[in-house]
Amino acid sequence: MQVSIACTEQNLRSRSSEDRLCGPRPVPGGGSGSGVTSSHGNPSGGGGNGPKARTVPVARPLGPAAVTHSGALRESAGRGTSMKYRNLGKSGLRTAENLMTVAYEHGVNLFDTAEVYAAGKRSSYIITTKIFWGGQAETEKGLSRKHIIEGLWGSLERLQLGYVDIVFANRSDPNSPMEEIVRAMTFVINQGLALYWGTSRWGAAEIMEAYSVARQFNLIPPACEQAEYHLFQRDKMETQLPELYHKIGVGSVTWSPLACGVITSKNEGRIPETCRGTIKSYQWLKDKVQSEDGKKQQVKVMDLLPIAHQLGCTVAQLSIAWCLRSEAISSVLLEVSNTEQLMENLGALQVLAQLTPQKVLEIHWLLGNKPHTKK
Amino acid sequence: MQVSIACTEQNLRSRSSEDRLCGPRPVPGGGSGSGVTSSHGNPSGGGGNGPKARTVPVARPLGPAAVTHSGALRESAGRGTSMKYRNLGKSGLRTAENLMTVAYEHGVNLFDTAEVYAAGKRSSYIITTKIFWGGQAETEKGLSRKHIIEGLWGSLERLQLGYVDIVFANRSDPNSPMEEIVRAMTFVINQGLALYWGTSRWGAAEIMEAYSVARQFNLIPPACEQAEYHLFQRDKMETQLPELYHKIGVGSVTWSPLACGVITSKNEGRIPETCRGTIKSYQWLKDKVQSEDGKKQQVKVMDLLPIAHQLGCTVAQLSIAWCLRSEAISSVLLEVSNTEQLMENLGALQVLAQLTPQKVLEIHWLLGNKPHTKK
Amino acid sequence: MQVSIACTEQNLRSRSSEDRLCGPRPVPGGGSGSGVTSSHGNPSGGGGNGPKARTVPVARPLGPAAVTHSGALRESAGRGTSMKYRNLGKSGLRTAENLMTVAYEHGVNLFDTAEVYAAGKRSSYIITTKIFWGGQAETEKGLSRKHIIEGLWGSLERLQLGYVDIVFANRSDPNSPMEEIVRAMTFVINQGLALYWGTSRWGAAEIMEAYSVARQFNLIPPACEQAEYHLFQRDKMETQLPELYHKIGVGSVTWSPLACGVITSKNEGRIPETCRGTIKSYQWLKDKVQSEDGKKQQVKVMDLLPIAHQLGCTVAQLSIAWCLRSEAISSVLLEVSNTEQLMENLGALQVLAQLTPQKVLEIHWLLGNKPHTKK
Amino acid sequence: MQVSIACTEQNLRSRSSEDRLCGPRPVPGGGSGSGVTSSHGNPSGGGGNGPKARTVPVARPLGPAAVTHSGALRESAGRGTSMKYRNLGKSGLRTAENLMTVAYEHGVNLFDTAEVYAAGKRSSYIITTKIFWGGQAETEKGLSRKHIIEGLWGSLERLQLGYVDIVFANRSDPNSPMEEIVRAMTFVINQGLALYWGTSRWGAAEIMEAYSVARQFNLIPPACEQAEYHLFQRDKMETQLPELYHKIGVGSVTWSPLACGVITSKNEGRIPETCRGTIKSYQWLKDKVQSEDGKKQQVKVMDLLPIAHQLGCTVAQLSIAWCLRSEAISSVLLEVSNTEQLMENLGALQVLAQLTPQKVLEIHWLLGNKPHTKK
Repeated sequence: MQVSIACTEQNLRSRSSEDRLCGPRPVPGGGSGSGVTSSHGNPSGGGGNGPKARTVPVARPLGPAAVTHSGALRESAGRGTSMKYRNLGKSGLRTAENLMTVAYEHGVNLFDTAEVYAAGKRSSYIITTKIFWGGQAETEKGLSRKHIIEGLWGSLERLQLGYVDIVFANRSDPNSPMEEIVRAMTFVINQGLALYWGTSRWGAAEIMEAYSVARQFNLIPPACEQAEYHLFQRDKMETQLPELYHKIGVGSVTWSPLACGVITSKNEGRIPETCRGTIKSYQWLKDKVQSEDGKKQQVKVMDLLPIAHQLGCTVAQLSIAWCLRSEAISSVLLEVSNTEQLMENLGALQVLAQLTPQKVLEIHWLLGNKPHTKK
Repeated sequence: MQVSIACTEQNLRSRSSEDRLCGPRPVPGGGSGSGVTSSHGNPSGGGGNGPKARTVPVARPLGPAAVTHSGALRESAGRGTSMKYRNLGKSGLRTAENLMTVAYEHGVNLFDTAEVYAAGKRSSYIITTKIFWGGQAETEKGLSRKHIIEGLWGSLERLQLGYVDIVFANRSDPNSPMEEIVRAMTFVINQGLALYWGTSRWGAAEIMEAYSVARQFNLIPPACEQAEYHLFQRDKMETQLPELYHKIGVGSVTWSPLACGVITSKNEGRIPETCRGTIKSYQWLKDKVQSEDGKKQQVKVMDLLPIAHQLGCTVAQLSIAWCLRSEAISSVLLEVSNTEQLMENLGALQVLAQLTPQKVLEIHWLLGNKPHTKK
Repeated sequence: MQVSIACTEQNLRSRSSEDRLCGPRPVPGGGSGSGVTSSHGNPSGGGGNGPKARTVPVARPLGPAAVTHSGALRESAGRGTSMKYRNLGKSGLRTAENLMTVAYEHGVNLFDTAEVYAAGKRSSYIITTKIFWGGQAETEKGLSRKHIIEGLWGSLERLQLGYVDIVFANRSDPNSPMEEIVRAMTFVINQGLALYWGTSRWGAAEIMEAYSVARQFNLIPPACEQAEYHLFQRDKMETQLPELYHKIGVGSVTWSPLACGVITSKNEGRIPETCRGTIKSYQWLKDKVQSEDGKKQQVKVMDLLPIAHQLGCTVAQLSIAWCLRSEAISSVLLEVSNTEQLMENLGALQVLAQLTPQKVLEIHWLLGNKPHTKK
Repeated sequence: MQVSIACTEQNLRSRSSEDRLCGPRPVPGGGSGSGVTSSHGNPSGGGGNGPKARTVPVARPLGPAAVTHSGALRESAGRGTSMKYRNLGKSGLRTAENLMTVAYEHGVNLFDTAEVYAAGKRSSYIITTKIFWGGQAETEKGLSRKHIIEGLWGSLERLQLGYVDIVFANRSDPNSPMEEIVRAMTFVINQGLALYWGTSRWGAAEIMEAYSVARQFNLIPPACEQAEYHLFQRDKMETQLPELYHKIGVGSVTWSPLACGVITSKNEGRIPETCRGTIKSYQWLKDKVQSEDGKKQQVKVMDLLPIAHQLGCTVAQLSIAWCLRSEAISSVLLEVSNTEQLMENLGALQVLAQLTPQKVLEIHWLLGNKPHTKK
């Protein structure tokens, strides 16, 4: 089995990072994470590898030729597996097995960029980067043409790459005209610095506006949206994005399928004690998990145990398979910190086939949080 | 006489190929040939030069200045010949004598890229490459922007060229939006990596859609379609492509004028024992030639012998001249494996002048397979 | 506090200039200043650094990390200050604190381009250049495509930069078609040589025409206009440009907030004896200041003293704050010759908050020169 | 006085040419000159500098700073002269004094490209090149995208330049679609290889089609047409091109103001014995001059002598001034072989002011060949 690895800038960059993260990636609250920008705006800053800096090393690519430490993986999902692909939205870009893994460095070899090129396998990976803005030091930047272009130049220089496959604009910016954003994205694509562009954490109306501006000025529309999606965060992904997919072909790449660590198979039923929760700067995460909502969610997770056992899988595998069930979802980003986690998560692919409409209905009934759709 | 040589990537690339091919080039069945992609997707793969790998070395260019081993050719078709040119579709690109030769390496000197540039004669050749997809290892690629661009970059790197004249998209891809394909082709042209783009084995409706999308978004439409055309494969070329030519100017470059070796002048009437037929991997070709249809076609070929004798030419020459008779055909790709074959095939140019409407009618009557046209 | 420094070409270029300027920058009369072009058209000319040559060295960037000699500045406007940003027109480009300083070299360290890049802080500065034409030696140039492109190439070479943030077309050219100008500006932006383009000293109708042509041909419209604006030059900025801002998003960068030295806090009430006034070539400036109009204006300046004292600021600070009060003004260019002047001028930011509608009315009443607007 | 020198490729290229030409430049008959292409298509060919090869060295630029051997010129047309400029059509490109000189190498220093750049004076010259096609060896090329792009690349390589100011398409090509031509020209401009494009020897309807296609696809329209124009060749320039200028802004650069040597001031009245006439390969020119038409024209030239004497100038100066009288003419290409000829021709600028409507009428009456215009 071949697995496309979404190599975000953070993956490729900070292989020598000292503090290993093992929890969720996104910054909470939807606000401008204070630490996010430090590694972007100030690469020379000493605090760049701090807890919230998103510096996540990535595992060695797991393609047939490049895999070295994944004998077990081969076993569980070997060449014999009938491989399926989904397109990124209605674009022609395909992602293997609907899973893009963002692997953490725990016993897994690092992604060696040089080697990748030596083997001429660039085409087998999808490498993305994000244009961040909104942090303390970057308040003045926004999604201006200047920041999009310079931000991407900076990423490429740090990555030592000539181009990325997808450049994402992280969070929409009401103070930058949409025409300027779409023109800048089209510019970097026409310059060959990126092949596609996407949005991250944008509202449906904003994505529609970007598409509309692209049509008005014959520019390149966005290919996909990165959105949070898991058992307890369903609204946007189930009510808004399918419409975008069907109407304008914008697909979704979802992240956090395990609800920032709330859904975990490590302890199958015990209140999770995420390792991030023990790090001071991840206090927010700990707080979230231990909040009223967090505790209720953990009860729900336990309610899913019987279904998981029925399917012979873990709750985490069930949850990931559940995310993959919609055709509008191009890819689910996994975040794992070691080989076992990666292999466990990949097991969700086998579960997907067993996820009958009946089972999905059962889960809906258990969760009781199905969003109202217009249809 | 000056002959434009269509230097496909395979021609230029594998001069040191060990297994010499002397049969037809296209992969049968219209499906995704298993071996086709190996030489593209995995240049380091040992099997890249396998039988179906399309690795065909090309003869030294035969232009007046560059010819070194073709004294006989000069004799048969020297400078005195009234040279005719056809445009590639309704584009301004002209091809000398309507023949683009894809010469195999049998006693013919190799095409020396370095020398070509030293002599500043790049403008005398038409160099093309193809974006393949659909092979086992490339199922996930399709005609995505990523694959078109990276595929062409890969070709240029292997060819050690800065650009090709025409880049072909081999087989249409229903899973990639036409807008993405045409935008990617326009991108590589605007980047100076190719001068024109064409399609290969596309349906008429798909070509029309590409044209229409190009018009809608002010992108560059395709210049030509590469299609199989010979005495026993007439439908698409005679019923669909002329309409495309007249309506939107898309011309045709045809291949396999000798029906994958069924039409041969080597044995004038005997069941052909193509050398490819003796190679194990070309069993399909042997099977095809020896099938019921193949045997019927060989009978037809024998029926053409009297006409060929009347015109003082071989059946192969007659067949090639017959392909050249339509104005909608920009060029006929020859596939030869040695100097004699090349010179024999080029003799078709003299036959063309003798191919009166009366003779064409006679051939139609003998073949009995004239397709029904809408007109 | 972080201060964006507008590094015009002149700033970066002539750090070793011998004659220090301490007065206004613009060339008077609106005509083609005879000296302006000498430094542009003839970089090797010995007279390039003459008095009118706009060769103004710039201070070391004052951002938190880079400041070295501005302890006092930190004190008066430190990190605690609530930082505000304005966008450049309705574009996404933001300028810190609405002030772009053009600092002269008096005790302030020089802007070290190399260091800037070493620190990876290019994104913190806004670097602009201007395409001049109309000088004696450049009469034949105009705003032709040739001159815009070659002019910018020349600037970038002199600056040793790959691109500028904004390229300004200085003065409109009735003899060059607007389509050619906008196409050339779009070309340099698409080539990555500039991120935005703007106009300088253009009429509102001309800016509107540029916008309209950009819309007609799907080119990039101008982002902002550079215009003179101060207590005694209010018409264009208060009657014409706001409409442009609201209708087509073109913002204004204003210069000469101290009326070419007429408004000065050095002598608070005395007739100013600008240092430029003592240089022979600035005789025109001296003449202007000592003209009837100039003398009347200096009387008005003295009338403002009570208001300034009321607000606990200097007349210069009051005048700059007054310029900043309109939302249509993206940035005010300061021109200072030493640290004290820079710090005094930056103090205007504190005054701005105190500039109540009541105070603005008082000033209007004192000046008696409020232009008639259509609204 | 500063004189813009139109440095055609031929000027810059063949400084070491052995055979000096002193006659007209264009190839007669409007056909495809057999020798024209040899220097283009085959730069290594030994015959590249043959008589018809258009290899004309150019004089050292005569701008104020660069002039070294033109003391006399300075005298006759020094800085004091009121300099006038005309735009190239309605484009913004200006040409000094309406004369673009193509100087031959007779006692005049060569144009030293390296020096030009060292002095940073590229912006003072207008350097053009032409895409030729139609010669024997280039029949297959036409104005295809391939030939336009490769032709220009070839020119730039030979010129050792990064770009030219204007690239001309020499003769229209009915077999290349206008869309392809205009797209290719827009491509080379967008690539920065040329700043403008023009036509040469095109019909008015063809130019209008190019303009129309440019408008249809939002491409760049041609800026000017190069056309033959002199006392005995008036039709196209006086009836067709003014309409193009007024309607679509396409200007005219005219060549051969002295009717291929028929009008000469060397012998003021004697049958000209052009030096080209003594070279075998210029037999056609000799034939033309000595034909019935040629003899009649020489009689007319003698009829103009009284008017020339009245104005205190030579017939050649009068003829050049007469060419310059129309505002639709952007520039007149001079072809001179030595300093005296250049200076004499430049004297036409003084004559122009004296060319009253009355005098123009007198000339019309003498010539008796005023073409009928539609107006």
